[in-house]
Amino acid sequence: MKVVYRPGGMRQALQMELWFTENLEIAADMRLQLRVERTLHSETSEYQKIDVLQTASCGRMLVLDDVIMTTEFDEFAYHEMIAHVPAFAHAGPRTALVIGGGDGGTVRELCKHANLEEIHLCEIDRRVVEVSKEHLPSIAASFDDPRVKCFYEDGAAWAKDHPESYDLILVDSSDPVGPAAVLFGEPFYEDCYASLRDGGILATQAENLFMHREIIERLLQYGEKFFQRRFYYNTRVPTYPGGMIGFTFFAKGQNAPDPFINLEKRYQESELKAQDFRFWNPATHKAAFALPAFASELEKYLA
Amino acid sequence: MKVVYRPGGMRQALQMELWFTENLEIAADMRLQLRVERTLHSETSEYQKIDVLQTASCGRMLVLDDVIMTTEFDEFAYHEMIAHVPAFAHAGPRTALVIGGGDGGTVRELCKHANLEEIHLCEIDRRVVEVSKEHLPSIAASFDDPRVKCFYEDGAAWAKDHPESYDLILVDSSDPVGPAAVLFGEPFYEDCYASLRDGGILATQAENLFMHREIIERLLQYGEKFFQRRFYYNTRVPTYPGGMIGFTFFAKGQNAPDPFINLEKRYQESELKAQDFRFWNPATHKAAFALPAFASELEKYLA
Repeated sequence: MKVVYRPGGMRQALQMELWFTENLEIAADMRLQLRVERTLHSETSEYQKIDVLQTASCGRMLVLDDVIMTTEFDEFAYHEMIAHVPAFAHAGPRTALVIGGGDGGTVRELCKHANLEEIHLCEIDRRVVEVSKEHLPSIAASFDDPRVKCFYEDGAAWAKDHPESYDLILVDSSDPVGPAAVLFGEPFYEDCYASLRDGGILATQAENLFMHREIIERLLQYGEKFFQRRFYYNTRVPTYPGGMIGFTFFAKGQNAPDPFINLEKRYQESELKAQDFRFWNPATHKAAFALPAFASELEKYLA
Repeated sequence: MKVVYRPGGMRQALQMELWFTENLEIAADMRLQLRVERTLHSETSEYQKIDVLQTASCGRMLVLDDVIMTTEFDEFAYHEMIAHVPAFAHAGPRTALVIGGGDGGTVRELCKHANLEEIHLCEIDRRVVEVSKEHLPSIAASFDDPRVKCFYEDGAAWAKDHPESYDLILVDSSDPVGPAAVLFGEPFYEDCYASLRDGGILATQAENLFMHREIIERLLQYGEKFFQRRFYYNTRVPTYPGGMIGFTFFAKGQNAPDPFINLEKRYQESELKAQDFRFWNPATHKAAFALPAFASELEKYLA
């Protein structure tokens, strides 16, 4: 409690200020602070520290190991873009695997696609799912969909053990430190390739073009090694470092889909409407693939 | 200096940690912190506090009234997009006015366009220009170009006093608090309209779609009142609130240009090359106009 002594001897109690300060290994000299009203939940699971905070302006926020995972304010810009860009790029996905994504936002978006018959979530930390169901119900909104099955296992091992199984694999991971580090390694990309059906698409959380070019370049090199078609796209998330986050988009097979062909047609056939989305639309879908001039060196990996 | 007392009685001096914390009236519950090595300059001018800090990872940074104006790390993503989008959209601009923009980055980008014959900078605070010349030479790089003339006057009054004078007016302002507040008012937009030649384009700094929808909507209403063609576009600047910043793009006259027609042709005719840009290219130019689904309500002002 901050107390201000005013000249006349008056003592005035001000409201306590609580600020969450992000502590990012992958951007150690830049920290976002968000004003917080109170802590809704705090625990240390088998894998990580899990906090849910009520922020002043960004709604509820999920924090893992002091890093912002998602906020009610801007989660849609991430979850819609990791899910709908590959889902609309594929000619007709029937099975999808989400690795990580325990908050449920990516699964919620996939559930909007009527052609999907099975949606598997493989999240190593069961507590993230349980805490999200309790405290982030607008994000963890579709776990009751009968097409959704949750597996609390290691995502890398899961991909290795399920060859030729999925039309879409979405890697909704935290950064390459802590439990998600294995999801940024070459063997994982090889296993995801094997786990996709022909024509399948792998989309993975792939950091910020301004700040993490080395990480991105490494992931694109894995893509070049295993996948027939390779793209990189971005979305805008104010509470992520630098306000943007990118995704690899790797597709399997000689007739692997590209993200632009038949986009409007598939959107119409899906019978989804503009009001089903808060960020995604055909314009933001296409715009997401525009690389700034400074990143043109990455184009050599793309095809 | 932080001193840590270790169990064995050892006293270890750690390196002092300096963090700049942004204090934003227009996003009061969200603060960016940047690690700082040292202060290069600090003064209070007639209009505002002016600081130049050496950051740990973002190069040198200009701060006005505790708000980040520009950093060497990402300034190009702002200056290129405020300048080149209108400059390439216009069929052949000969005269340009920059209001604000005392750091010189917008002028530097305009100077790349050989068809521009006169580039006027109207910056109310002469000290911003002088400090930038001394401490940010890579940004304040083109003040010696013979086409550039600086006027240290009120930008709103300047526009009012110079009817039918400019093909491009770029408002490179701070936020609508402090000295720049007048640049977010309706009379200023009316005066800019009058100050443009037929076919001219006004582009103004217009905040963040996620966070400042009310401000943006108000500016688009001014646009609708005075201008024949109206667009809104965005760029990505990691050190700005939410990592993005938008611009209005208002054009004058029944044959006012739209930002897409003949883009590649004009780029080729300009004889500018890919290596002249770090952010702008035809792909990012076009992508910048994609509005997320949540902002579709703004489309009613656009035409």
